[in-house]
Amino acid sequence: MDYSEMHPYDVRKLIRDGKITTPTAGMCAGYAQANLVILPKDIAYDFLLFTQRNPKSCPILEVSDVGNKMLNFLGKDIDITTDIPKYRVYEDGVLTGEYKDIGDLWRDDFVSFLIGCSFSFESEMIEDNIEIRHIEEKCNVPMYITNIKCTPAGIFNGNMVVSMRPIPYEKIVRSVLVSGAMPKVHGAPIHIGDPSIIGIKSIDKPDFGDSVNIKENEVPVFWPCGVTPQAVVMNVKPKIVITHSPGHMLITDVKNIELKY
Amino acid sequence: MDYSEMHPYDVRKLIRDGKITTPTAGMCAGYAQANLVILPKDIAYDFLLFTQRNPKSCPILEVSDVGNKMLNFLGKDIDITTDIPKYRVYEDGVLTGEYKDIGDLWRDDFVSFLIGCSFSFESEMIEDNIEIRHIEEKCNVPMYITNIKCTPAGIFNGNMVVSMRPIPYEKIVRSVLVSGAMPKVHGAPIHIGDPSIIGIKSIDKPDFGDSVNIKENEVPVFWPCGVTPQAVVMNVKPKIVITHSPGHMLITDVKNIELKY
Repeated sequence: MDYSEMHPYDVRKLIRDGKITTPTAGMCAGYAQANLVILPKDIAYDFLLFTQRNPKSCPILEVSDVGNKMLNFLGKDIDITTDIPKYRVYEDGVLTGEYKDIGDLWRDDFVSFLIGCSFSFESEMIEDNIEIRHIEEKCNVPMYITNIKCTPAGIFNGNMVVSMRPIPYEKIVRSVLVSGAMPKVHGAPIHIGDPSIIGIKSIDKPDFGDSVNIKENEVPVFWPCGVTPQAVVMNVKPKIVITHSPGHMLITDVKNIELKY
Repeated sequence: MDYSEMHPYDVRKLIRDGKITTPTAGMCAGYAQANLVILPKDIAYDFLLFTQRNPKSCPILEVSDVGNKMLNFLGKDIDITTDIPKYRVYEDGVLTGEYKDIGDLWRDDFVSFLIGCSFSFESEMIEDNIEIRHIEEKCNVPMYITNIKCTPAGIFNGNMVVSMRPIPYEKIVRSVLVSGAMPKVHGAPIHIGDPSIIGIKSIDKPDFGDSVNIKENEVPVFWPCGVTPQAVVMNVKPKIVITHSPGHMLITDVKNIELKY
């Protein structure tokens, strides 16, 4: 079944009915996908402030109303407890379960944060004839914990996580311009070149995701990554936090091009 | 005394020492000025969410730490209780006083919101040879309450307030591009032309500020205005809210050009 040409509304229905449980990469071409972090209201102010102070790594697409399972802005009839293929529940910082539906776990004090995802700018870069190595190699993007300190907010603090894409010299400038035009989904790179400058010891050993090949005439280019807010939340070890399972994103009704201005 | 060429740090010292008590328009050329809203923590989450959902009218430049008079990001040694020339205090929605210093009123649960200001994009437009009528006529910018509904958040709800600048036909496109490049200080216009479409009955009778002359060959162009968050806060009539006095802004160490990307 090819989901790439289907509308997000129809794919979300299949996800809700348990007919899709796989990662969402490549589904609903042209539409933005989002990361999920669900937190209790008592720590939601600090987290919202953290995202305001760190917009490059934590670009917020929507914050739900407290206790409301339904989203208001990212699409028609989105129930955040059923419309993502796979969820992870962490208690006191420990992964305690993976679920296809979190309806039974929902609480009246939960707030859902939907955070922009690099799929959006990758899709624009591909349109612009910039090859994305981890897509070509059919693996996950390599991600690294850096020495770049996020701006703390309340209880939340930590270092920026970045994703890396090898870019040929002649395409570095366009890759900055194309991704930089989409600040709501991480925007421009945070670093270009020598990984040691941002505290990365070994480019072959990413902290998350998979290692990819860097060819002759290519430079590693680093973007702020949506894993940052998840890592920062885990530092705090809240009593409960629910996220999407890696790669299993919310597919929104928002087109990537709408995130440009 | 000409404050236009002085550094913000030095002008803020004069303000702190009570030596400047006037409006700040024209001071410290090239540096951004900011609107102020101080609220108690118990309603700060809803307000922060309101600004997240309405970034065009409420572009946040900084949110202080709870109870901390000192800002972290907008400049060196900024004490928010002394470094603005004039403050207004509202209790239950009623203006109860105007102060040059709010040190005695400060509380441990206060949060300061600093919000971007149209001075920043006006300064860029003037550089680009676009005349700003209310500056030429030495009066306040005309502002109007529209029929455009803000996206509600918690207790906060209301309509967008816009500012209007008459622009000649041949400069409309550049005025969109120049201001649109500065999304952190309101960004692109929200409406161009016929005022009735956004619910403005009489262009000669602004709800705030002063009426300005619209010449032959000019079109009224409307931008989201930083008075919106103040108006929305007043709708709620909180027990206490402190703002800057109109025109008496915080002068930051951030250059307008830094708000571009």
